[in-house]
Amino acid sequence: MIEEPRSAVQRKADTLALLSSPVLDGWVATDGPNLVPLTLAWFRERLIAATDGANPTAKTLIATGRARIGLGHTRDVVLVDAELERWLPVTEAPEINDAYTTQNDWDPGKAGPSYVFLVLRPTRIQAWREADEIPARTLMRDGAWLI
Amino acid sequence: MIEEPRSAVQRKADTLALLSSPVLDGWVATDGPNLVPLTLAWFRERLIAATDGANPTAKTLIATGRARIGLGHTRDVVLVDAELERWLPVTEAPEINDAYTTQNDWDPGKAGPSYVFLVLRPTRIQAWREADEIPARTLMRDGAWLI
Repeated sequence: MIEEPRSAVQRKADTLALLSSPVLDGWVATDGPNLVPLTLAWFRERLIAATDGANPTAKTLIATGRARIGLGHTRDVVLVDAELERWLPVTEAPEINDAYTTQNDWDPGKAGPSYVFLVLRPTRIQAWREADEIPARTLMRDGAWLI
Repeated sequence: MIEEPRSAVQRKADTLALLSSPVLDGWVATDGPNLVPLTLAWFRERLIAATDGANPTAKTLIATGRARIGLGHTRDVVLVDAELERWLPVTEAPEINDAYTTQNDWDPGKAGPSYVFLVLRPTRIQAWREADEIPARTLMRDGAWLI
């Protein structure tokens, strides 16, 4: 495929559009190594995951504080390194639950008291399509947008 | 979506069809947590990744021996836990390179001497689409197909 590499400004715009898009599914990696697909919300510059607090992803994240999340397609990638900022039972987070259910297709608030929201603060965001975009793939570093 | 859950036999058939399909892209998670999209081949019941030996995925895999690989879509998932069986320079593996280039759209053998094949032996394979398939999602355990 012969295309011009996107500018950094365009890649940031594409990334924000993806993060705000309906039914945001991603691959969430934690140590173990552990990897699961989860539906996420983008709310106040945080990625919000909702899962049973007993699942390995929640337990590992709460123990280690770190995740890496793959979004988009394997050849139109957004990779987010994130820290766990906080977590709370779904029943105690009506504002987050509203944002999550508005963006997505299920309601964690009705999933039962064992479900938790994991509030993930991005520290690094990378985005690329083809090899020509890899050298300038970093859009956020140390939690700050570079563009 | 209302569909019958697939039988275990059907899920195994769908999984093998996916693993053998052209241009097999997957999300490869290793400890760190690290996560990257990589193109894989399915050869003699092994998943073969090809990457620069200096990349974090190769270095971590060689150090820890373990990966988890997400294939397919987030709502039609194949998850493979795998152990690193061996790794070797791409230039010293003509048979693996043939299999890899036959299935995929690039030739690791031409990528330079720093590139390596990572030969991953599946130990557990899970496959599911909707929640109703999760209870019986495990198709392989301890390296042996259950079906």
